[in-house]
Amino acid sequence: MAPALELLEKPIQKDLSLESPEKHERVMSVFRAFIADICQQFGEGHAGSPMGMAAIGIALYKYTMMYSPNNCDYFNRDRLVLSNGHACLWQYTFMHLVGVKGMTLDQLKSYHSANPDSLCPGHPEIENEGVEVTTGSLGQGLANAVGLAIASKNLAATYNRPGHEVVNNMTWCMVGDACLQEDVGLEALSLAGHWKLNNLCVIFDNNSVTCDGSADVANTEDINMKMRATGFNVVDVYNRETDVAAVTKALHAACLGEKPTFLNIRTVIGYGATKSGTADVHGAALGVEEVAKLKKSFGLDPSKHFDIPEDIYEFFRDIPSRGEAHKANWRSSVAKYRMAYPILAEEFALRVAGKMIKDWTRLIPQKENHPTASTASRKSAGVVTNALAENINSFLVGTADLTPSCNVAYKNKIDFQSPDLQTSCGLDGDYSGRYIHYGIREHAMCAITNGISAFNKGTFVPMTSTYFVFHLYAAAAIRMAALQGLQQIHIATHDSIGVGENGPTHQPIAVAALWRAMPNVLYIRPCDAEEVAGAYIAAIKATETPTIISLSRQSLTQYPQYSSREGTLKGGYVFREADSDAFDVTVIGVGSEMVYAMQTRDELLSKYGIHARVVSFPSTRLFEMQSREYKQSVLKPGAGKPAVVIEAYPSFGWERYADASVSMNTFGKSLPSKETYEHFGFEPKSIALKVKGLVEEVRMNGIGTLRGDFREFNAGLCIGFEHA
Amino acid sequence: MAPALELLEKPIQKDLSLESPEKHERVMSVFRAFIADICQQFGEGHAGSPMGMAAIGIALYKYTMMYSPNNCDYFNRDRLVLSNGHACLWQYTFMHLVGVKGMTLDQLKSYHSANPDSLCPGHPEIENEGVEVTTGSLGQGLANAVGLAIASKNLAATYNRPGHEVVNNMTWCMVGDACLQEDVGLEALSLAGHWKLNNLCVIFDNNSVTCDGSADVANTEDINMKMRATGFNVVDVYNRETDVAAVTKALHAACLGEKPTFLNIRTVIGYGATKSGTADVHGAALGVEEVAKLKKSFGLDPSKHFDIPEDIYEFFRDIPSRGEAHKANWRSSVAKYRMAYPILAEEFALRVAGKMIKDWTRLIPQKENHPTASTASRKSAGVVTNALAENINSFLVGTADLTPSCNVAYKNKIDFQSPDLQTSCGLDGDYSGRYIHYGIREHAMCAITNGISAFNKGTFVPMTSTYFVFHLYAAAAIRMAALQGLQQIHIATHDSIGVGENGPTHQPIAVAALWRAMPNVLYIRPCDAEEVAGAYIAAIKATETPTIISLSRQSLTQYPQYSSREGTLKGGYVFREADSDAFDVTVIGVGSEMVYAMQTRDELLSKYGIHARVVSFPSTRLFEMQSREYKQSVLKPGAGKPAVVIEAYPSFGWERYADASVSMNTFGKSLPSKETYEHFGFEPKSIALKVKGLVEEVRMNGIGTLRGDFREFNAGLCIGFEHA
Repeated sequence: MAPALELLEKPIQKDLSLESPEKHERVMSVFRAFIADICQQFGEGHAGSPMGMAAIGIALYKYTMMYSPNNCDYFNRDRLVLSNGHACLWQYTFMHLVGVKGMTLDQLKSYHSANPDSLCPGHPEIENEGVEVTTGSLGQGLANAVGLAIASKNLAATYNRPGHEVVNNMTWCMVGDACLQEDVGLEALSLAGHWKLNNLCVIFDNNSVTCDGSADVANTEDINMKMRATGFNVVDVYNRETDVAAVTKALHAACLGEKPTFLNIRTVIGYGATKSGTADVHGAALGVEEVAKLKKSFGLDPSKHFDIPEDIYEFFRDIPSRGEAHKANWRSSVAKYRMAYPILAEEFALRVAGKMIKDWTRLIPQKENHPTASTASRKSAGVVTNALAENINSFLVGTADLTPSCNVAYKNKIDFQSPDLQTSCGLDGDYSGRYIHYGIREHAMCAITNGISAFNKGTFVPMTSTYFVFHLYAAAAIRMAALQGLQQIHIATHDSIGVGENGPTHQPIAVAALWRAMPNVLYIRPCDAEEVAGAYIAAIKATETPTIISLSRQSLTQYPQYSSREGTLKGGYVFREADSDAFDVTVIGVGSEMVYAMQTRDELLSKYGIHARVVSFPSTRLFEMQSREYKQSVLKPGAGKPAVVIEAYPSFGWERYADASVSMNTFGKSLPSKETYEHFGFEPKSIALKVKGLVEEVRMNGIGTLRGDFREFNAGLCIGFEHA
Repeated sequence: MAPALELLEKPIQKDLSLESPEKHERVMSVFRAFIADICQQFGEGHAGSPMGMAAIGIALYKYTMMYSPNNCDYFNRDRLVLSNGHACLWQYTFMHLVGVKGMTLDQLKSYHSANPDSLCPGHPEIENEGVEVTTGSLGQGLANAVGLAIASKNLAATYNRPGHEVVNNMTWCMVGDACLQEDVGLEALSLAGHWKLNNLCVIFDNNSVTCDGSADVANTEDINMKMRATGFNVVDVYNRETDVAAVTKALHAACLGEKPTFLNIRTVIGYGATKSGTADVHGAALGVEEVAKLKKSFGLDPSKHFDIPEDIYEFFRDIPSRGEAHKANWRSSVAKYRMAYPILAEEFALRVAGKMIKDWTRLIPQKENHPTASTASRKSAGVVTNALAENINSFLVGTADLTPSCNVAYKNKIDFQSPDLQTSCGLDGDYSGRYIHYGIREHAMCAITNGISAFNKGTFVPMTSTYFVFHLYAAAAIRMAALQGLQQIHIATHDSIGVGENGPTHQPIAVAALWRAMPNVLYIRPCDAEEVAGAYIAAIKATETPTIISLSRQSLTQYPQYSSREGTLKGGYVFREADSDAFDVTVIGVGSEMVYAMQTRDELLSKYGIHARVVSFPSTRLFEMQSREYKQSVLKPGAGKPAVVIEAYPSFGWERYADASVSMNTFGKSLPSKETYEHFGFEPKSIALKVKGLVEEVRMNGIGTLRGDFREFNAGLCIGFEHA
């Protein structure tokens, strides 16, 4: 089902006639001098890489990419990812030259300026027109590009029909040395090779220089051999930093292979400058005299600054109309498709519009259908994932080799695989598959997911799954999702300390604090199946936000009388009121620790006659979005009674809502689940005794006694500190 | 300076005579049946990999490794890392067989039991004898092994002299598919190949199976070609899961190469079981009947459980005495060395004892020597790093390609490089070098650092350096350092939002929350050069803890009148008292935001007559270690006055100490440093106005009005939430 890329109005123009080498040379000279001027104005910025990448830019923007400067976001455009994001001036300047609206000369001059409305920030940002993903955290863009290529392959396999190709775009990814060294880039490359993503071309700006000097200082591997071993078609372009034709030829060939392509293009960083080819021109302006010298050597007037003569604009003049034609062709293809396949076309139109089918809520289990027996929340979540993923093509479900543990393998799933692997390895699946085996590669899983989300916002709601602790491997990628406002659902199982025997390496102490603190991450820890349902509703409604649903390995008591999806959507809610209006204490239960909160409530009442309210608190972020009245109605801070939170994570951050905690301030331990909890003092009898002490103290001295004196009801902070 | 490994009492015993294949077969059968029994007792555990790795275990423990069961921690032992840590029963059982004290049959039976004192947790833990590093977070162990090999190479190059080899151990690292897929493993392999660490042998338990089934599901690369491209000597061992001799031969050859070795050994997971070779035997017990069947097929008595006949013990009987001889040989080498090189030997003895030279404090700059002009804290830190690293061989300083930015390149540094690269690439450096170029590989940098720290606690105090935001790439590794109590110093520059033009990708919002919440991580944000000095003192004294020193890119006002290293060591301290005893508000300044705290104090006094105290708060962790009296003397919670914290990170976690915050609850922005702060409301005039409002509210309504009502003096929490 892979689209035959050469069939439609693809970039491969067999009758392509290039302009003369002299013309290319002139365009590149003006481009390089301009870059040097831009960085010189504030005496900083990244000039070297953009200057070295001039020929690649012309080959891509003038001769290869299928895009439309007037409609940067039309659906079937080629995607370009600048994974070496510090080279953004390269992209901004070409966007200006080809006529992207808004990318004016003044905007270019605002690079590194104090203008808060600049379209030219220090790294490309997704909010700005013509930018596919925010890059700058090195290696991420490369993995995003793999995600963009997956998205395209999956849509093509799902919707294209013989003679009707409504999706067939290429993904072009610029990388520097760093992206090929970074962990996430390496994982993503392994997967791109495995999946034979022939709609992906990785273009290596091989300038042999990094911040520390020669790239050899830390890397002497045979990159071509390595890329071949990884499943790429490798094309070498030697000494072609000025040869637009050679680069163009290589780019066009990349569209025709059966594998992804790796173009290894030798370039010269800071081409034309005296210190070209050295780290000195990586992250700095060249200096006034050097810029003048550069211009002279290019035959340009050193007294002119930011000068782009008319013939350079003329060189790119055909691009907007060609882009309009691309877009019009695509629209016409879609129109014909609508006639031939009206039902498919309707769904496709919804996907293009970035919309979910309307009645998705019916797929979320109703309260009365939850099992009442103890159930692990990973299982409760599996029921929801199953229903959503089986029925809605927007869901792409992935796992980092934890299919048996994460309960996300939905009924009748088809694996996302290259059809070629059916014969060579006997693997099931094809590109229409929506179940993705990422291998043991959590970081690439999440970074690729960002690319899938970014293909066109709303077209996909990708899901990932792994143990919660392994989200630390992927933290940099999930952060990029939050920064870019990308919707995705991360199924994080084996949370808390209930994972048991696998021990402290697998018990995710402190991971939750990162997500609760991070802007635009929705972290939800449901306590039972009903709260799980609420978590999914929140995640699907959070269209500009990555959501992490944090789930237990161990079975959890279900609370059909008390738990509520509506409460979950508010982040925190009164779970069970005290039997007396004159309550003594509020006990906050979270996720799998709710059972300890509820049992402590019983113990306090039966043994000590103390009246406790129980609050469930699945999401601090959602709670903070509520009104002050609502928040105070839940926590009743004015009542002068203490609040105690019970969660098997550090208390850090709970001080906003509680005066004391039963929490984990050390790492965990390898024991069976129940014994792990007991080992760390999660035991209703002992918790109740401590809460009783607190209640009595407050009765005696008033609530003010707790101000600035947060109480940890468990082992202290572990630090290996030698007091000399 | 690479030690000639074959010279000393190395494992390569040329006259080595192996026992018969039949004997090996019997040992393996008993071993496999025993593993099956152990997992069967509780109906869970990881049986498959250990069973498949039986031949490798015999080859290593019986015929290859230089170690001493009676002295598992003698300095020059070979290091064995089980990077596929879930296979720990393999290691535990061989430790039992070779006679490691304490590893009794009862201990082995406590695997997955409720015994809190078990020496057999679900993954190997460094606290237990015979375990070099805690593994289980996949890929980490492989990077640790690279660090262990670096440590050995560096010590050898520093201390060995012709005819005197006091360090020459090998590092053996078992890996499964996962370690070769995980990001950190891939980065570490690139570096091991680059550095030509021929004292490292990576042994691939190539059983073709992962949790999701066939490893082909997510990986079809040519691993041998890839490893060759990465700089490894690759040795294939086909169908040798039962051939101890073939594996032994390959292991011995690994000790003689000029490159690191990658042994690709085809094994059968769950060898002997009906479902051998499938994912079903990965993470589960086999079942009672299957275990019986297995034993029968091996010619063993199915009615006997946990049965290790005497002839099996006899097979390993020579190991303890051989180990004693290894240790005695090493001691005798060291004694001769002491005679020949008394000064070197004295330093070497200190390193072996894990001790720092005594007068290191003299290298920390005194207060009067700090510059008084504004200075970036990364520069102040550079002064300290320089003095320590130049003078003390314990410091191994690394950078993730940010030498020009992180100020850690100490005077007269020698790069850690293979001497071979001097001729082939013209690179300076050799193995005695203590400046490590990790490339753009933050995760491997930190995970390798864990291996360096773990070689022998205290022998090295490794340092890393990168931008603080990129610590998210390395989060899983730093967590492992904290879990294992490994001392190391992470220089984290470009903290806060002052990094400026590089924009939101580079502004580390929310990263600090992770480290403040995580057990046994010492995160310190000094506000000036004097607090930087305090941070280094804390880091060096924290011998069982990784320390992160968080530093600014931008210049910071120095406060010689107020800042103090002693205060820094307490985590938080009164920086400047109010001019009046009857103060109105406490303003908490942190790191680079101290200047806003101090200016707000002035503004409050001059404009509104409000008396503010200023508290500096470089480390919440150190503060929590102080007495309640001290803490209350700093924060004065009983005075009924509000406290406001100013930090360009989320307020999350500051609620313990403050009632309100000027903080960052969104991501940052690409602007020059000063303008970035202004953009987000870090401006003394506007802060003072808000604080004034708070002070007036408290004057009117009392401090109780702030209970449960934390105030954010800035933009709200950003969430892309579609309210349906």
